Amino acid sequence: MALVVVGGVAAGLSAAARARRIDPRLEIVVLERGPAISYGACGLPYFVDGRIREIRQLMGYTPEYFRRERNIEVRTGARVTSVSHARREVTLESGGRLRYDHLVIATGARCDVAGFAGADQPHVFTLQTLEDGARMRQFLSEKRPRSAVVIGAGYIGLEVADALRRNGLQVTVLERSAHVLGRDDAAFTAAVQRQLEAHGVEFASGVEAREIEADRVGDVRCDMVVVAAGFKPNVELASEAGVATGRTGAIRTDERMQTNLNGVFAAGDCAEATHVVTGRPAYIPLGTTANKMGRIAGANAAGKRERFGGVAGTSIVSVFGMGFAVTGLSAAQARAEGFSPVSARIEANSKPGYFDGRRTTVELTADRSTGRLLGGSAIGEDGAAGRINVIAAALHARLRVEDFEQLDLAYSPPFAPVWDPLLIAAQQLVKEL
Amino acid sequence: MALVVVGGVAAGLSAAARARRIDPRLEIVVLERGPAISYGACGLPYFVDGRIREIRQLMGYTPEYFRRERNIEVRTGARVTSVSHARREVTLESGGRLRYDHLVIATGARCDVAGFAGADQPHVFTLQTLEDGARMRQFLSEKRPRSAVVIGAGYIGLEVADALRRNGLQVTVLERSAHVLGRDDAAFTAAVQRQLEAHGVEFASGVEAREIEADRVGDVRCDMVVVAAGFKPNVELASEAGVATGRTGAIRTDERMQTNLNGVFAAGDCAEATHVVTGRPAYIPLGTTANKMGRIAGANAAGKRERFGGVAGTSIVSVFGMGFAVTGLSAAQARAEGFSPVSARIEANSKPGYFDGRRTTVELTADRSTGRLLGGSAIGEDGAAGRINVIAAALHARLRVEDFEQLDLAYSPPFAPVWDPLLIAAQQLVKEL
Repeated sequence: MALVVVGGVAAGLSAAARARRIDPRLEIVVLERGPAISYGACGLPYFVDGRIREIRQLMGYTPEYFRRERNIEVRTGARVTSVSHARREVTLESGGRLRYDHLVIATGARCDVAGFAGADQPHVFTLQTLEDGARMRQFLSEKRPRSAVVIGAGYIGLEVADALRRNGLQVTVLERSAHVLGRDDAAFTAAVQRQLEAHGVEFASGVEAREIEADRVGDVRCDMVVVAAGFKPNVELASEAGVATGRTGAIRTDERMQTNLNGVFAAGDCAEATHVVTGRPAYIPLGTTANKMGRIAGANAAGKRERFGGVAGTSIVSVFGMGFAVTGLSAAQARAEGFSPVSARIEANSKPGYFDGRRTTVELTADRSTGRLLGGSAIGEDGAAGRINVIAAALHARLRVEDFEQLDLAYSPPFAPVWDPLLIAAQQLVKEL
Repeated sequence: MALVVVGGVAAGLSAAARARRIDPRLEIVVLERGPAISYGACGLPYFVDGRIREIRQLMGYTPEYFRRERNIEVRTGARVTSVSHARREVTLESGGRLRYDHLVIATGARCDVAGFAGADQPHVFTLQTLEDGARMRQFLSEKRPRSAVVIGAGYIGLEVADALRRNGLQVTVLERSAHVLGRDDAAFTAAVQRQLEAHGVEFASGVEAREIEADRVGDVRCDMVVVAAGFKPNVELASEAGVATGRTGAIRTDERMQTNLNGVFAAGDCAEATHVVTGRPAYIPLGTTANKMGRIAGANAAGKRERFGGVAGTSIVSVFGMGFAVTGLSAAQARAEGFSPVSARIEANSKPGYFDGRRTTVELTADRSTGRLLGGSAIGEDGAAGRINVIAAALHARLRVEDFEQLDLAYSPPFAPVWDPLLIAAQQLVKEL
């Protein structure tokens, strides 16, 4: 039996490694079109800001490691040009062909700069690969730019804005929609904007920036531009092979991560997954999800029957030391999905006042008719990750806010106040339901 | 209608405040035998170690505040000597009597020094009240003791050991049982012991220390002694009034926090609560639980019908900057409760290696036959509180470890690694089930 995996970063390597653990005799080949595998793309902003000194700190396992320790063949610079599922065969740009019994498509996503006129200029960057990071760092040290425009206020956009500001640049973030992080939540967006502005970063939403000139984007003068928008799943190869995409534009999968073609799985930033709150397909490309999906795809491709538990859209971004975290649906998203959302938003200390507690904002949203929690957010310098994870667990467990209010959470002055902000938010929401 | 609350700290005041919010016309009297109400006893170790400068930082609301802002009468120095439920009446030491329609008993617990010979010497301390804290601080600054014995390795014992060591004392902790924090868990105890010893605190378990001499406890020379053992619920008043206690020795309550006497509620450190894992009564006196129980007792005493969701035994203690957190049952406790526990214990980084992650230990225990999570622990300098709270939420929701493994937890390098230690532990446990 042979397993071919297209893509050698998070999802692809997770799939290959898991398949190997399950079936020691499976023939496994991973095909990566780029020069590197297994890199920590999520660390790139911290390489740009200088907190990570050497780009090799972001490199994970090597092809040699996989060959030697896992008996997995990993080829870099191996671009797959077509898949014939009828013949169970992939064709490489080099002309070579590979037979498979099972195929895992983990082709990732891209920041599609094609929609931006002038994106091919040397002062325009994206931040997806190690080469992107190295090129940006080199530009910063050699050209000493004094100002930057970041197009897009998703995770990468916000992290890059933070990183460039720490390099001393004047930074402006331009976001096409009315909100940040793809989260339709005005209060959350306002909080991010306040934090950006408090640290000298300009933020403008509702700005369509399609033309990049040599020294400006629209009205904003700048010495460099980072495109952190236009994120698109790489589905072309799959589509041409007859793999169906879903309403989100990413590859449709079942709960085993199998596509419409029997024996062909998809995982990571190219694939949809089921949302735990809506029960419907969602496209929320994130590194942690990619690894999880890959693990399930690899298990099933190796003959197991495992189910992916779905995504809640849990994520967190650090903006100048403040954690901005979300999970599940915002009130507006919940309404669009047919729920009757009710929200409560509170501010409270992360610890007792006498123990240097920091202001923490928690918002919880529940469905009026059932009381079921639908989503939430947590903002703070301290404990935002832990708090959003408790809400995420509650979403997976389909807890009602009345149950959530009863959670026995840890209390001790160095860690948390006697009433955790999560519980204060839940009490407030119970009153409003 | 009149509500009388016996006890004016966490549970009692929560009950009174909640009852007032529900019924603006209820007559509410809180009787506190001590001189102070509403104080942050959990902060006392940090007053002893000097991080809290002024004891007034631990003082909360005053009786005047309650009278003025909440229309609640709070009497300090008001010791109740008996309760006649037949007459719906409490008698005060002063001879006065008070009629009630509903009664909330929130008499707390005490550190019972009676079992320790020599406990009345001036160099022997407990740490429960503001006066205890003030007396200990005064002793430290005036007598400049160079060594201390702490009897008991519960939360207070460990926090006091930390605090005294920070004052420069040579500290020895003597614990009667084989484990710390009342948690029958050898690996957890060993981790606490390592942390104590790494910071110069001696720890000996299995040591019965019943006699306190002027300059020693058993073989250990010392200039001062802190008794942080013999914690007992104050049930005498209730028992004499006909209120039943449970198998734990604390006051038996139903899910509304009502005792066996109709209209008499109990809450806080004097009362049992239902354990969310075992479904049986448990006695786990903690500040956060006391507040929650008080809130429910107050609501029901004011005519609502509210249910207390029970306790999971979630708690955390800081020992020299390291968080030691537990929730639910240890494997040994689970076995004693009739489960077939399987545990997995892992060590992993709290963040990516390139982002200054710290070693984190997570243990999860599940029931072999059902896969249901029964408990867990988290140890680390970073994120232990957030992680134990996710496990606690899973216990409330009765998640199986297979579900827990699927949780969509937040990932971003400044906060967490791509595979959170919680998920690594869950994967390990799934393999072992």
